[in-house]
Amino acid sequence: MSTRAESYLVGLIGEGVTPSLSPAMHEREADRQGLRCLYRPIDLLELALPGAAVGDLLTAARLLGFNGLNITHPCKQLVLEHLDEMSDDARRLGAVNTVLIRDGRFIGHNTDFSGFAAALAAGLPDASLGRVVQLGAGGAGSAVAYALLSAGVRTLDLVDMDPARCAERAAELSGLFPEATVTARSTAELPQLMPLADGLVHCTPVGMAAHPGTPLDMSLVEPRHWVADIVYRPIETQLVREARAKGCRVLDGGRMAVGQAADAFRIFTGRDADAARMREHFLELIAAEEKVAA
Amino acid sequence: MSTRAESYLVGLIGEGVTPSLSPAMHEREADRQGLRCLYRPIDLLELALPGAAVGDLLTAARLLGFNGLNITHPCKQLVLEHLDEMSDDARRLGAVNTVLIRDGRFIGHNTDFSGFAAALAAGLPDASLGRVVQLGAGGAGSAVAYALLSAGVRTLDLVDMDPARCAERAAELSGLFPEATVTARSTAELPQLMPLADGLVHCTPVGMAAHPGTPLDMSLVEPRHWVADIVYRPIETQLVREARAKGCRVLDGGRMAVGQAADAFRIFTGRDADAARMREHFLELIAAEEKVAA
Repeated sequence: MSTRAESYLVGLIGEGVTPSLSPAMHEREADRQGLRCLYRPIDLLELALPGAAVGDLLTAARLLGFNGLNITHPCKQLVLEHLDEMSDDARRLGAVNTVLIRDGRFIGHNTDFSGFAAALAAGLPDASLGRVVQLGAGGAGSAVAYALLSAGVRTLDLVDMDPARCAERAAELSGLFPEATVTARSTAELPQLMPLADGLVHCTPVGMAAHPGTPLDMSLVEPRHWVADIVYRPIETQLVREARAKGCRVLDGGRMAVGQAADAFRIFTGRDADAARMREHFLELIAAEEKVAA
Repeated sequence: MSTRAESYLVGLIGEGVTPSLSPAMHEREADRQGLRCLYRPIDLLELALPGAAVGDLLTAARLLGFNGLNITHPCKQLVLEHLDEMSDDARRLGAVNTVLIRDGRFIGHNTDFSGFAAALAAGLPDASLGRVVQLGAGGAGSAVAYALLSAGVRTLDLVDMDPARCAERAAELSGLFPEATVTARSTAELPQLMPLADGLVHCTPVGMAAHPGTPLDMSLVEPRHWVADIVYRPIETQLVREARAKGCRVLDGGRMAVGQAADAFRIFTGRDADAARMREHFLELIAAEEKVAA
């Protein structure tokens, strides 16, 4: 008569995760499906714990009946050594943001990449994927680049403020996708690159409240480009707004956020999430936040 | 935007707790009140952990966002050293079955005693409490005796198969309730004691499926006695059935089970539980179990 099989206890381990929208998104979708779900933020900053505590937290979660955990900065690599299994994509990416706890085993997945891939397919279904410029090659950028290459992008121009990191990422991705061309580029090359590109993907913090502005000279963006942002606070970044005004097809950052949550939901519960419904809820949540902030 | 303040993550630590009805009772009552609640059994037998692990489990639960825990055999005393605060009653009883986690602190309560007291008041509101015979002086029996003496019983005759334990408990209770008379008795004295008693309280395992029968010679039970059992699987123990057939007023073991859960619910959530509604649900759950077993 345990209720364990019918209910889902999950959480999110990382720094500064208290304001995350994942708890609300997962709990609401579970409610809609008639599942009992409770999703707890486990904030390393509030707990004064280092990222290396992720292993102990996983063990604790297993003892206390958690079904899974989302993992975010700074634990997406630190968690790897504690896993019993990993999906092929997560292993290739070298990063895990979702751990399923099943039969006492920790099984790693990466829904950052799959969530972006799903978002791209849903939000920009006819986008040409021949050549893409991507700004930002950090953790989220790596997952996004992996998704782009998995989706069929043949030429990826990676731009990052840190040339060494950018070169390293480009080399890694070239190794994983030998049929594609992945090149580390500098901001100075954008005037030459953008005219060759089908689309632009943005994976830096620029556009968030703390980093206002656009991540590139907007005169380089043409109406024929599609533009994808992964920043979602605000949902209408300056990049998204100005690109849309130019006539570009755009993908806001909420698409990836919802995509990764929907995929994690499926991994945790074994049931498909209704991504369109989750997207609506996500937009409500962001609108409520923006109203409070205004 | 944390959902933590609006939702309750709780659990039950002990041996063999997987079939506990507490998860279902708490979750249903929370649903009725519009609260999100998830209640996990944390079974030391399944986890192959000793009772002494309760301290580590409490610490883990605090890290992972639990709001509280119920505690049962064999941890009700082992947990004491890990608490930051205790209610006066729990301290006097020397046993804790409910730990509230608030602001990172562990606060111990005992709802076994308060739950029995509430059950007695609700189920046998006019019972004479002058003199009571109690069978069984183990952990549950101690809480019940404490409740009886708190409720005003003036003379308590404690009977247990273990004379040393019985004498020790009687001495402890006499110290706590100096105005009452608490005496350790033997089964052989029951024919002299029952004619003096207003009521009979049963706190041994007799009557459970694994221990069939009645805990005393039923010819000693008279229609004028009230009879309270704490065994609730089955809900109609042979003692309850035969006492009722004699015309006795009876209190089945479900009353205490619901009473302790209702009090724990209030401690965890800060909201009163609807004990009558929980009782109805409890009876449904037990009936479903008994149907499966039949």
